[in-house]
Amino acid sequence: MITFQEAYLKVMAHKQDYGTEEVELLKSMDRVLAEDIKADRDFPPFDRATKDGIAINYAAIKNGIKEFRIEAVLAAGSPKYKLKSENNCVEIMTGAVVPENADTIVMYEQITIKNGYAILDKDPNQGQEIHLQGSDELQGAIVLNKHKLITASEIGVLAAVGKAKVLVKKLPKSTIISTGNELVDVQETPLPHQIRKSNIYSLYAALAEEKIVPSQLHLNDEKEEIKKEIKKALNENDVLLLSGGVSKGKFDYIPDVLAELGVEKIFHRVLQRPGKPFWFGIQKETRTLIFSFPGNPASTFANYHLYFKDWLKGSLSLSIPKINVILDESIPVTGNLTLFLRVKIRMENGQLLADLVKENGSGDLTSLAQSDGFIRLDPKEVPYSVGELVPFSPTRRTISL
Amino acid sequence: MITFQEAYLKVMAHKQDYGTEEVELLKSMDRVLAEDIKADRDFPPFDRATKDGIAINYAAIKNGIKEFRIEAVLAAGSPKYKLKSENNCVEIMTGAVVPENADTIVMYEQITIKNGYAILDKDPNQGQEIHLQGSDELQGAIVLNKHKLITASEIGVLAAVGKAKVLVKKLPKSTIISTGNELVDVQETPLPHQIRKSNIYSLYAALAEEKIVPSQLHLNDEKEEIKKEIKKALNENDVLLLSGGVSKGKFDYIPDVLAELGVEKIFHRVLQRPGKPFWFGIQKETRTLIFSFPGNPASTFANYHLYFKDWLKGSLSLSIPKINVILDESIPVTGNLTLFLRVKIRMENGQLLADLVKENGSGDLTSLAQSDGFIRLDPKEVPYSVGELVPFSPTRRTISL
Repeated sequence: MITFQEAYLKVMAHKQDYGTEEVELLKSMDRVLAEDIKADRDFPPFDRATKDGIAINYAAIKNGIKEFRIEAVLAAGSPKYKLKSENNCVEIMTGAVVPENADTIVMYEQITIKNGYAILDKDPNQGQEIHLQGSDELQGAIVLNKHKLITASEIGVLAAVGKAKVLVKKLPKSTIISTGNELVDVQETPLPHQIRKSNIYSLYAALAEEKIVPSQLHLNDEKEEIKKEIKKALNENDVLLLSGGVSKGKFDYIPDVLAELGVEKIFHRVLQRPGKPFWFGIQKETRTLIFSFPGNPASTFANYHLYFKDWLKGSLSLSIPKINVILDESIPVTGNLTLFLRVKIRMENGQLLADLVKENGSGDLTSLAQSDGFIRLDPKEVPYSVGELVPFSPTRRTISL
Repeated sequence: MITFQEAYLKVMAHKQDYGTEEVELLKSMDRVLAEDIKADRDFPPFDRATKDGIAINYAAIKNGIKEFRIEAVLAAGSPKYKLKSENNCVEIMTGAVVPENADTIVMYEQITIKNGYAILDKDPNQGQEIHLQGSDELQGAIVLNKHKLITASEIGVLAAVGKAKVLVKKLPKSTIISTGNELVDVQETPLPHQIRKSNIYSLYAALAEEKIVPSQLHLNDEKEEIKKEIKKALNENDVLLLSGGVSKGKFDYIPDVLAELGVEKIFHRVLQRPGKPFWFGIQKETRTLIFSFPGNPASTFANYHLYFKDWLKGSLSLSIPKINVILDESIPVTGNLTLFLRVKIRMENGQLLADLVKENGSGDLTSLAQSDGFIRLDPKEVPYSVGELVPFSPTRRTISL
């Protein structure tokens, strides 16, 4: 058996690049940008009024003028106007182009309008209330770097520079496979010795968060059926995620079947709990990766988040977050297994505190729903102490408070 | 003008309840559970082997027996078996029902199998390696409380208890409305005095995160057109989100039009930056709420996150997170405006540290994409100091590290 650290590095050494594809702007949400995005023009594209009021030429102020004849009214969206006389003004609305011959805006709150004239209540500063052309970004400047996750704010930038279609990283074609004769579907009533599938649903939901829409497959514990179906799946997918069938049981055919199909085992079994019987391998010809997780809910869920999510981030060129949280209780960790314990995160005084969630072994489903993620505790001579920093892997995007 | 705190409380006082609806399990992701979920049977539903090995009756150990004749092999998914003699054993696989007359599992690693007999390498503990029926949850126990956000782990629990359909909180029917003659669509090439719509895209994307699929509408600055379209939208929606048209400009018709349509203004203009000209109101007959945001990208984006998101959480019975982060620099805040400053969050030693993002006023689009959210700084006599805790509103679900 290998350690968690060794297993993690072996998984990360198999990052893949699935190329790029173009998607419509609003479909690019939560995808990874695959091109640098440049400003297609200056931002702002013109000297832009930032207040509603009048546009004047400051030279007039220097000449002692306080009253300006109003030449015109400029709305946002009006073509650029030329001020006829520097002793006149125009009314101008937020977002409109500052006229030629004007260089200062005075907002309505600081003027009085009477008989077609605007009278200044106080002296303005030269150049005030103007958002100068190119002051945010010059044409050609990179406004979004590739390999950035696209969220609502990036969507706004992409729209502003005219990216109706966006080049994003392609996602791996994936199939999730449940195994085991004891499993029935969610809408069925299980017999006393049966249970319902649940891992395949939580995996589906977790992948959906990453915008992966996986295919689904269920295999009974029949070796020839498993072999036939996995052979097909290997050739049709970039990634297979299996749940169950990798322990030491007589009907745990997955490792044998994968070996018979010529899939290279990279490792099987890791010094960790939960998730020890994790099997990881690759079919070299197709570069299909196989993440074969033990079937207990906590094991599948932990290994998905510990290995697969970081592997996916790496494959999509995203940076991999390293989050440390603060232990709120003392925990002894003896033996030779790295423990992944379910915790709830408490945000207090700007700190991330980890509270252990009561759990009942790796078959315990409900405690996962009470957790925000797993803390990692490697075996240590002395107990982990209150206040100690430990690595944390979140299992939900929004930490519930 | 009212303060941010007053405005926030007025918005939150208008929480609505849009009722419930049933959706398919995999469509319930990111929705809010509207029913308590109970265990439909004990979890686990039977005494369940947690290791592959043999099942024995511990009485035999007490009688000094070390070798057990193997009666049968039990797979997961096999009906319950009865051990014929307490001096015999069965081979049993993880997930299988522990047989009647057996009470202890010994894993393969601790036995030797020869000639149809299993020989113990060491003495087991009575009851070991068995996940007892009902030890996680008893039938009828609440396994998920209503008003919980459904994520991947909750999906697993819902599947396990047979919820093929889930009752969730209904979302408000929403329309987002952009206004302004200067705006052209993302796929168009703007004239020199025009800019592309961007707020409507970032609002769409932000609402999509909440699983709201809004309708979209664009209004030019023509009062009668605005009035006709808004009247229609008021009657067809629970919520209107507008961007632009609420400043002091001559063509900012929105406040007038809403007044003429009998919409009650709850407030207009808040002592805050960005987002000061925020207009909020309600059409009493239909209970339609109007969030009318100023048109600058940072203003719309800030007000969406500061007001609308918390209002939505409250309306869906979700708790509203209060996150404080630690300032990493000293900031003076004079004047009478509450400032919302763009920051990037750095996680370090279990702490959330806020670094200011360079910004260029509320018209500056690109700095939003460099930010993780806004910190709130109320005016204060002395500058905010390094290490001080300030409230934080995230603008992305995953804080980028």
